[in-house]
Amino acid sequence: MVQELTLAEAKTILDAMEEKAEELGVPLNLAVTNSEGNLLGFRRMDGAKLVASNIAQNKAYTAAAVKKPTHELKEGAEPGGDVYGLHTTDNGRVVVFGGGFPVEHDGVVVGAVGASGGAVSEDMEASQAGLDAFEPLR
Amino acid sequence: MVQELTLAEAKTILDAMEEKAEELGVPLNLAVTNSEGNLLGFRRMDGAKLVASNIAQNKAYTAAAVKKPTHELKEGAEPGGDVYGLHTTDNGRVVVFGGGFPVEHDGVVVGAVGASGGAVSEDMEASQAGLDAFEPLR
Amino acid sequence: MVQELTLAEAKTILDAMEEKAEELGVPLNLAVTNSEGNLLGFRRMDGAKLVASNIAQNKAYTAAAVKKPTHELKEGAEPGGDVYGLHTTDNGRVVVFGGGFPVEHDGVVVGAVGASGGAVSEDMEASQAGLDAFEPLR
Amino acid sequence: MVQELTLAEAKTILDAMEEKAEELGVPLNLAVTNSEGNLLGFRRMDGAKLVASNIAQNKAYTAAAVKKPTHELKEGAEPGGDVYGLHTTDNGRVVVFGGGFPVEHDGVVVGAVGASGGAVSEDMEASQAGLDAFEPLR
Repeated sequence: MVQELTLAEAKTILDAMEEKAEELGVPLNLAVTNSEGNLLGFRRMDGAKLVASNIAQNKAYTAAAVKKPTHELKEGAEPGGDVYGLHTTDNGRVVVFGGGFPVEHDGVVVGAVGASGGAVSEDMEASQAGLDAFEPLR
Repeated sequence: MVQELTLAEAKTILDAMEEKAEELGVPLNLAVTNSEGNLLGFRRMDGAKLVASNIAQNKAYTAAAVKKPTHELKEGAEPGGDVYGLHTTDNGRVVVFGGGFPVEHDGVVVGAVGASGGAVSEDMEASQAGLDAFEPLR
Repeated sequence: MVQELTLAEAKTILDAMEEKAEELGVPLNLAVTNSEGNLLGFRRMDGAKLVASNIAQNKAYTAAAVKKPTHELKEGAEPGGDVYGLHTTDNGRVVVFGGGFPVEHDGVVVGAVGASGGAVSEDMEASQAGLDAFEPLR
Repeated sequence: MVQELTLAEAKTILDAMEEKAEELGVPLNLAVTNSEGNLLGFRRMDGAKLVASNIAQNKAYTAAAVKKPTHELKEGAEPGGDVYGLHTTDNGRVVVFGGGFPVEHDGVVVGAVGASGGAVSEDMEASQAGLDAFEPLR
């Protein structure tokens, strides 16, 4: 049995991410996927960078597919790292800077979030706000 | 000046599409793009088909990119049609069956909607509900 | 809660598909995916056509993503059909001839099978043998 | 005459890789290709990371295509290396961290193995177990 996020849960998460981005004053692209990295919900805030649309979605994909926050992948993917070049694998969908987090429930990855368009710290803050707002509705 | 849909407008449209899909009893993938075919908002309803995630987004892309409802492209794209094979152009992003519509304001395309996951008639009905709900907020 | 095939179940399915292919005397490519179309198990029988490696995987993907057997998609995707051009959507992963089937349990799609490399009837027979062998182990 | 792995040999290899992964207590994606880098057999163990499905296949592809273990490619692909950027060539299919090995017979590459989903050392250990289990059946 695999647990998956529902659309209602994804909306709650996106609302919190959007609210945080507004608080930070930076327009972001916001994405939520299920545990297999497929998109459940997406929002591009007014004025958010186009490049960040794809990056937000791929941050969430990466977090689901690797089962780790994306910022934890950076060190290993860099020159000298254990998995140097990780970000160019999997058809270029792997993002190795911060802003993607798996969503866990009872210790199991049930989906993922990704934010992009601001400084990495802002992207991470918005995603974290989404995680904090997650409440299993089932 | 080019007018574009805002995220707030996209949400109103998506709410109406989702409501219609619930009324029809069929879980859909729902997409709204800006006038350049780039995604503004997306929702995959619980139980909606995975294949329709990509198709909903590409229906909206197509409607924005061609500035026509997708069902109007079918005849021309078929054997014997003026633009036979249209759907295999543009990196396969062009969809030539119903469910995608441009969103117009003052005679100008300001974005597009796409729905996928049901019968074509259901997809079209959901997208139409989105169009009907569109109210320029600016 | 989403139910998913396990690798053990996928192997049982692949064994039955392979046995049927041997019985038919035609080397096939055989694929099993989870409900989101991601590959769980794959086998290319000795002498099986290379082209059919991708097709078997995409038949299974399609059956999972559309939640229907692939042969049921053919009529609609043909000229004059409701969803003409369906097979060129979703990055060309949609296959509209026979050989892909969703695997269902308690009325829910928990995965999919795909076979390719023989006549369509042979591909379908092998996939059907896989379905028949499916026994939930949990 | 070119020698190639058979499906039966690939299964023996995959069995040994899977057994090693279970022993290590880490769910992996496991792939075997022929000497041309095309997939012969694949298994995604229960709970194995999605990203590693593609990476395991591409590790095996790389090992077959380069005729070297993937960990030997790392140094050259890094900044300052002879073939800096190697991993971004060949449509991003080249992986330059450990876990892929060519399978050799009589000094000739007859196929390749790839494992992904654990630490690089675990991936390498599982692949090595597969190599050790290889016995030409012809």
